[in-house]
Amino acid sequence: MGDTKVETISRLAQWRIENFGPCSFKKSDPFKVGIWNWHLSIERNRYLSVRLFPELSRVSKEQPPVAKFVLRVSNVGPNRRFYISPVYEKLLRTTDDCVWHVDSSFHGRFTIDVEFLDLKICPVNGGEASPVWPTDATMQSISTQTTLKCLSRMLEESILTDVIIHTADGTLSAHKAILSASSTVFKSMFHHDLMEKESSTIHIDDMSRESCMALLSYLYGNITQEEFWKHRLALLGAANKYDITDLKAACEESLMEDINSSNVLERLQEAWLYQLEKLKKGCLMYLFDFGKIYDVREEISSFFRQADRELMLEMFQEVLSVWKPV
Amino acid sequence: MGDTKVETISRLAQWRIENFGPCSFKKSDPFKVGIWNWHLSIERNRYLSVRLFPELSRVSKEQPPVAKFVLRVSNVGPNRRFYISPVYEKLLRTTDDCVWHVDSSFHGRFTIDVEFLDLKICPVNGGEASPVWPTDATMQSISTQTTLKCLSRMLEESILTDVIIHTADGTLSAHKAILSASSTVFKSMFHHDLMEKESSTIHIDDMSRESCMALLSYLYGNITQEEFWKHRLALLGAANKYDITDLKAACEESLMEDINSSNVLERLQEAWLYQLEKLKKGCLMYLFDFGKIYDVREEISSFFRQADRELMLEMFQEVLSVWKPV
Repeated sequence: MGDTKVETISRLAQWRIENFGPCSFKKSDPFKVGIWNWHLSIERNRYLSVRLFPELSRVSKEQPPVAKFVLRVSNVGPNRRFYISPVYEKLLRTTDDCVWHVDSSFHGRFTIDVEFLDLKICPVNGGEASPVWPTDATMQSISTQTTLKCLSRMLEESILTDVIIHTADGTLSAHKAILSASSTVFKSMFHHDLMEKESSTIHIDDMSRESCMALLSYLYGNITQEEFWKHRLALLGAANKYDITDLKAACEESLMEDINSSNVLERLQEAWLYQLEKLKKGCLMYLFDFGKIYDVREEISSFFRQADRELMLEMFQEVLSVWKPV
Repeated sequence: MGDTKVETISRLAQWRIENFGPCSFKKSDPFKVGIWNWHLSIERNRYLSVRLFPELSRVSKEQPPVAKFVLRVSNVGPNRRFYISPVYEKLLRTTDDCVWHVDSSFHGRFTIDVEFLDLKICPVNGGEASPVWPTDATMQSISTQTTLKCLSRMLEESILTDVIIHTADGTLSAHKAILSASSTVFKSMFHHDLMEKESSTIHIDDMSRESCMALLSYLYGNITQEEFWKHRLALLGAANKYDITDLKAACEESLMEDINSSNVLERLQEAWLYQLEKLKKGCLMYLFDFGKIYDVREEISSFFRQADRELMLEMFQEVLSVWKPV
């Protein structure tokens, strides 16, 4: 087996050299620690010079490593002797950034260890270096994934559910604690001596079982995009009725994204109904600033016959302010 | 106001040109749609030539856009006429990828609309183009954030909690449904007619209140890295005792990452106690393959006096298989 392979475990890398002649040079294979590939190289001149450097790549160029480490050279066999470097803490980019000269006559078989005490990414545009090893994100995402899996099982398998929801076409079971934590309206239902608290049932007659299921998927953290798109308007109504602010904002954001001539009037109506200021402005801009009013000429009359007077007034004001007499 | 600015809303971009002479050329400012900056340009020769192209950048080079869109040119004022392009679906990289020749004599004031019907990222190394507009990830992450906020409120404000946990030094309240969904042991406690089910209390005397709080933070999806590191061993014990497999794996993974000479024997003991195969192998490799056994020479005797006989045997076998007589 060639002796260029470096073994790694945890934050330790070990290069076992089988034979190293008098005036030689040897470079190791790349070995991965953190987000970089590394190399070790040794050279025999007056000293034994040990170098540690990251492999040239886009990662090491754009996110160069700041490493805190210690190097160790030791021969093999019973009367082991070893040399330990000082603890270095350096930005490592090129082969010259870390050269350790060891006054040792080692040749033939010996071992080089690198123990990384800390590894950070050095921001090229200045600012604080960020740690490579498990940051908050890693642990949090593991725990989040576990929790979300449990929540979806709690919902799908109705584990210890304590409230029944009667929808327009079927029932669902859920957990009062989750509903209460997500909505002030649900919270008051279960706290004050209301019918819902005693009977542990809720009636949501203005939602189908399927869209109510989408609402629960949202509250239990695992709604899919498809489910959200399909039930957006029902979710918007529920978010407004049960005061679920994040969901209301998410619906508004999503409805803003695909305004077109076939839905702009309907969206304007919803924006008015649920006081969605951004969506209302977006629709008015689409109609008047972008001149799309011409594309919906026929629908305007039926729209005006049932729209809220204040909305009609606001539309009229918009035309006056945006358009000019020709 | 110069007429090079392009307004955008939702998937529509509109360029209102104030004056465009006979044989001229005009290029718009960049406007952002999706993840790219775009330009429109118009040129008058025999036709009016309209071009749409992404601004040259690393994004447009490495993740070029595949756009489905329609262009529209219309004059302003009462007798509006407009020309609508066919629906294009193209990979757009350069100014020549999309040229629409309009046989119109428009000059002076007119408007150009681009309506993006769909936008995808074309993978440079082949494979399926990925949509730019809200993918599953966007919606899921909104719903996940909402749920995690609710869960941490449920825990911190003890909203409708239904079980009391007595730890070694204090009590905590939690939700049976969440504990049951996370652990088969908790689940059976609350399902079978055991003391816990009747009394709605659990006794965890081998955990401090603080480490039990860390356990709940993990189960409710918002443990911090710091909390995890501080209580890793207690969490490992609890994960083993209550059969919380994800947590057990996360603890093993984390303990593998910072093995060093001061903790390797303690970790080997834990790995043996909780049957953590990977951690055990990692510790043995650290000790024998990497020769760190020399660093822990003194501690070995006290370790051997209380270690499990089978573990001692396995360590001995490891030495015989990894080392060679010199």
